Amino acid sequence: MERSGVLRSSGGFCLFGANAPFHVSTSSTASALMETKRPTNPAAEEVLGGYFPVLDHGFVSLIDYMGSDEDIERAARVSYGYGTRKQSHTRGLIRYLRRHLHTTPSEMVELKFHCSMPMFVARQWIRHRTASVNEYSGRYSLMPLLFYLPERENFALQSDANRQGRQGESAPADVYGEAVRRWEELRSAAAEGYTWMVGEDVAREIARIDLPLSTYTQWYWKIDLHNLFHFLTLRVDDHAQWEIQEYARVMAGILKRVAPLSYEAWVDYNLCGSALSFGELAALRSLLEPTEEGIAAREGVEALGKEVLAGHGLSGREIKELQRKLEPVERPDFDLDLSRMRSPEDLAAEMEEAVPDFQPDSGES
Amino acid sequence: MERSGVLRSSGGFCLFGANAPFHVSTSSTASALMETKRPTNPAAEEVLGGYFPVLDHGFVSLIDYMGSDEDIERAARVSYGYGTRKQSHTRGLIRYLRRHLHTTPSEMVELKFHCSMPMFVARQWIRHRTASVNEYSGRYSLMPLLFYLPERENFALQSDANRQGRQGESAPADVYGEAVRRWEELRSAAAEGYTWMVGEDVAREIARIDLPLSTYTQWYWKIDLHNLFHFLTLRVDDHAQWEIQEYARVMAGILKRVAPLSYEAWVDYNLCGSALSFGELAALRSLLEPTEEGIAAREGVEALGKEVLAGHGLSGREIKELQRKLEPVERPDFDLDLSRMRSPEDLAAEMEEAVPDFQPDSGES
Amino acid sequence: MERSGVLRSSGGFCLFGANAPFHVSTSSTASALMETKRPTNPAAEEVLGGYFPVLDHGFVSLIDYMGSDEDIERAARVSYGYGTRKQSHTRGLIRYLRRHLHTTPSEMVELKFHCSMPMFVARQWIRHRTASVNEYSGRYSLMPLLFYLPERENFALQSDANRQGRQGESAPADVYGEAVRRWEELRSAAAEGYTWMVGEDVAREIARIDLPLSTYTQWYWKIDLHNLFHFLTLRVDDHAQWEIQEYARVMAGILKRVAPLSYEAWVDYNLCGSALSFGELAALRSLLEPTEEGIAAREGVEALGKEVLAGHGLSGREIKELQRKLEPVERPDFDLDLSRMRSPEDLAAEMEEAVPDFQPDSGES
Amino acid sequence: MERSGVLRSSGGFCLFGANAPFHVSTSSTASALMETKRPTNPAAEEVLGGYFPVLDHGFVSLIDYMGSDEDIERAARVSYGYGTRKQSHTRGLIRYLRRHLHTTPSEMVELKFHCSMPMFVARQWIRHRTASVNEYSGRYSLMPLLFYLPERENFALQSDANRQGRQGESAPADVYGEAVRRWEELRSAAAEGYTWMVGEDVAREIARIDLPLSTYTQWYWKIDLHNLFHFLTLRVDDHAQWEIQEYARVMAGILKRVAPLSYEAWVDYNLCGSALSFGELAALRSLLEPTEEGIAAREGVEALGKEVLAGHGLSGREIKELQRKLEPVERPDFDLDLSRMRSPEDLAAEMEEAVPDFQPDSGES
Repeated sequence: MERSGVLRSSGGFCLFGANAPFHVSTSSTASALMETKRPTNPAAEEVLGGYFPVLDHGFVSLIDYMGSDEDIERAARVSYGYGTRKQSHTRGLIRYLRRHLHTTPSEMVELKFHCSMPMFVARQWIRHRTASVNEYSGRYSLMPLLFYLPERENFALQSDANRQGRQGESAPADVYGEAVRRWEELRSAAAEGYTWMVGEDVAREIARIDLPLSTYTQWYWKIDLHNLFHFLTLRVDDHAQWEIQEYARVMAGILKRVAPLSYEAWVDYNLCGSALSFGELAALRSLLEPTEEGIAAREGVEALGKEVLAGHGLSGREIKELQRKLEPVERPDFDLDLSRMRSPEDLAAEMEEAVPDFQPDSGES
Repeated sequence: MERSGVLRSSGGFCLFGANAPFHVSTSSTASALMETKRPTNPAAEEVLGGYFPVLDHGFVSLIDYMGSDEDIERAARVSYGYGTRKQSHTRGLIRYLRRHLHTTPSEMVELKFHCSMPMFVARQWIRHRTASVNEYSGRYSLMPLLFYLPERENFALQSDANRQGRQGESAPADVYGEAVRRWEELRSAAAEGYTWMVGEDVAREIARIDLPLSTYTQWYWKIDLHNLFHFLTLRVDDHAQWEIQEYARVMAGILKRVAPLSYEAWVDYNLCGSALSFGELAALRSLLEPTEEGIAAREGVEALGKEVLAGHGLSGREIKELQRKLEPVERPDFDLDLSRMRSPEDLAAEMEEAVPDFQPDSGES
Repeated sequence: MERSGVLRSSGGFCLFGANAPFHVSTSSTASALMETKRPTNPAAEEVLGGYFPVLDHGFVSLIDYMGSDEDIERAARVSYGYGTRKQSHTRGLIRYLRRHLHTTPSEMVELKFHCSMPMFVARQWIRHRTASVNEYSGRYSLMPLLFYLPERENFALQSDANRQGRQGESAPADVYGEAVRRWEELRSAAAEGYTWMVGEDVAREIARIDLPLSTYTQWYWKIDLHNLFHFLTLRVDDHAQWEIQEYARVMAGILKRVAPLSYEAWVDYNLCGSALSFGELAALRSLLEPTEEGIAAREGVEALGKEVLAGHGLSGREIKELQRKLEPVERPDFDLDLSRMRSPEDLAAEMEEAVPDFQPDSGES
Repeated sequence: MERSGVLRSSGGFCLFGANAPFHVSTSSTASALMETKRPTNPAAEEVLGGYFPVLDHGFVSLIDYMGSDEDIERAARVSYGYGTRKQSHTRGLIRYLRRHLHTTPSEMVELKFHCSMPMFVARQWIRHRTASVNEYSGRYSLMPLLFYLPERENFALQSDANRQGRQGESAPADVYGEAVRRWEELRSAAAEGYTWMVGEDVAREIARIDLPLSTYTQWYWKIDLHNLFHFLTLRVDDHAQWEIQEYARVMAGILKRVAPLSYEAWVDYNLCGSALSFGELAALRSLLEPTEEGIAAREGVEALGKEVLAGHGLSGREIKELQRKLEPVERPDFDLDLSRMRSPEDLAAEMEEAVPDFQPDSGES
């Protein structure tokens, strides 16, 4: 719909998958089973090389991984050598490490993804500098003309509370209808302009400058577990733009298969935990106290009003934040829906069809 | 021209400059002269806070700096402590360090820039992960609707040789004319669409998704000298897209004022130097030899044909590269043209005028 | 005391300070007052170039800085551009940023230190990879033979609770006496061996391999504020080795002068705050609830015993951690004692005297 | 020899290997063959988990790896998508990437090592900040009392030329004999002191401060291929301390098995190549020229004396460097000697025996 009629399949090229001209060596395709002495994780192998659709034309795929929970433990154990006590089991150690910010052992696990996303999402994503990236180049290559079209339910008004995001409620139907009409018109013109310039042999690096930010790009993205947790904490959060949340949720589901105990610790200590400030803790301490048995409400103090909280140094906004922290929270579930997993060939075919008509150059470099 | 008529000045806001509501503390404005015991560099002070225009609406400005050549020397000298020989002068040491890849002392100098560039340039720039960045947010803020329009002479055909860039020759006049017509139409529609959506109170993070990659963004960008040299080496190179070269050239001129000896060493050893491979050196060694007096042509061998070069392991492309290394090279001159330097207020006014009409919210956060 | 009698002053050399042969350019010495348009901070200037002693022979000195609280604000404001509400003041913004993990603006401030510390401290310190470092080289230079001797009150038994640290109580006096005797003997032998080997012209990189980990080294160390906070959070913590805490406390005091509002926010939200897990919050929520007025104790539930806490997923160790979080905490005060500040010349003289006797080579490199 | 007689085997503990109490999960031990869809490399599998001795008590072992040459190609190909020419083969692409500093694809390969080295080597090694590290902790654990003793042939005089290293020639036999005597005495005293303090229950973090820099430590070390090449270029170089070169050479041999084409390109373009400066190239251009056929000596100019070279801006030292670049170079061969490969159990036994006598604590954490 958002692709102009001028775009026809060009035949022949396929960026990924078993038949891709780019992947001659079988040792690098994820299809053949090989034997290895490396740490191997059956739950991760099950989704390795499968493509999970995100948004209307995007995807996330786990391409490779290194290590698992046991390798984090092994790296941590190098610190606890001779003369230390018998340690508790893997789960206890991993939870301890995460709780106490001993993050270096989790750098020992690495994940490699192949992803496709609209450029405005890519621009947020790339701010995470601790990953390795190789992106599709609009200077060398023809861009597949695929554009992200928000669905009705995600087309929302500017949020008052958040001031960087959107409201829970979506915009009126007629506004959405008009937006779709404008988007389709604009993208059709952008696609036509791009195709025309490329046809006139204008340098591709110039031809692409008026593609909209909704155009899909793709990349390989490799990151260690420590930094991936940081990425996910920020990006599954509801302050992140909804579209990048969608990617983060799939990646959290993949990670859950690579390092399940670390995943669980991250949910308990980071994602569903909260940082409390000196002032917030002081307020809580005036209501609660540690006892021999556990913890208990203090006698005599039953409630703290806004003035008392302000006396602990909390601003109006911080008081609201503290109240929110005392509201119940649901543990999210990022389990992957394996029935949605698609083959690389399948997605490559969709992408290929979106590339402007061209004559593949048969010359040798 | 590329801004739609619906865009009018909104009055009042000014993102930078002395009158900006954002810069209340005089200690952070670059206007007032203060006394300091820190290393201070008059040539850098002369351009500090000045805005150098780049492309049609972009700019580069040096906002702050830390250290100079002498501080690189000082950091290096901490290695050469007691019992070492009397060292040569600053210039000799700095050239030695650069030639021998002793790069850590040059991390001791830091530069902070304020820059504005089209988003397709920003996307190349941000790949350099060793900098600190704060970018204008299209989720919080209204985008100034400024778009980059290539000039006739930079509107070139796809390069055959380079395969990622453009040819030296520019495209035919009628193609350029048609391109400009399409760009203006598309940008007018994009600007109108954005302004309409913002007017309907659609979330800004959605309203901006169809802005073209030619839209200007801006950021603060801080980097140390070592990593800046790496950035500049890649970005003043003629394999880089011409538009980002324009930025790199201005930054090289600024750097020349902050650390002139380091700049000179970079030009001599990196920018205008070349790496020769094992095979290339083997070829040269069969033509040349070291002598008591210096170096000399070997007797008996006067020329190496392609077959001999191939025998040294050079591919056809590498032979061409070697030949190019033996062609004369001009030392570039990145001197800044101080007459082009503009005030922050001046550029802020241009940007302000490009923001869609809006009612500044007078509420307090 | 721990230096052998074989070590005599060699005359002439001075690693830092106004008379050092290494610092020819007055623009890099911190002594002369210059005018600058850069952001300048009087409270930081007051300690710039002063040396604060740490342990028996170590020191920390602020050599240079870039930016202050206002520059963090300025970097953050580039996100909040046109069309955003009038923002609150610097303090409110900086506290908001820190509370909500918006850490990139604090990367815009940079600090450069000159420090000297025992090598076992240097080995912990260097694990922070986000800093730039230039260290004194034992391959090039003669090592000043200065060794760290723990004082009686810091000579403690292995902790049972902590398992990586020491107990609050110190070891018996006779054990300390015997330890000092052994240390002095060993260091005397190590110093003598080093001096002998250097006298025999053995390569310095070999001669130094039997110096003990208590030998002092020194370096220039540059880091941005965001990463410095991370360093300080881990290193002023009482789980860190006491000796490195001593360094961190002085650096916190320096930082307090460079960026006082950021410092205050760090104390409130990081240093004296606590992360609460999903389980801990669930436990608190069963005792407390948000109300219209603020927060209040729930009716009917007055205490949680260990079994209930375990039911929320807390391990025995986590229950103790939660109880500790409910105990009162004192806000630390890292104010510098300016009367302890010494001149670079003063410290250089001490160091020079500790270098083994040698003939400074007068040759030119 | 260098271990005191007070050190006896403690029985029971084993830091690594199949029977280690730390490695309960079979999925993390490198012993069992598993099936995987990940890229797998038989030549790397052959040495995976094997321990190569380095120096007298150190080792290097490949513990895990991710990807190979084909994965670098795959990552690069994502840039060369639709509409690009048919590309050359893996080898050609990998050589092209390395020659032209397109380094990001080589970040897609990762290697994980387990290494043991003297602390003065560890201190050089850790300066490479782009790796992930987990080191044995002397605060938690008892140090195995193993010390590095240089052999006769590596015990050399201070180099005049290099000024940071040692001469080719070794020191006189009697000096070596005296050095060994002093080392043994000092280490015996240090080991006895450590064992005594640990026996008195002094905090381990204090007890270890007088261990010499020659004491062995160990760590897990994970790095990507791009950064490993940088490490190896600096550390197999003869300006590096000989002891760390020994480690780098084994790692180069391991890398050769993980990514052989990348290894070959690194040797050709980095290790055995040279950077030529603007001045050096200008000198060569006056002797040589590109021709239709290849390259040739210019007529009329047959030699350049020192004055001419100085006229091209070369210092005396640079002239010597240029002459050296024109001398023949041998391609090194880093092939591993598989007959030296040892089992983890074997090395663990040696280490265990070197731990001071202690009573393993049987308590549960």
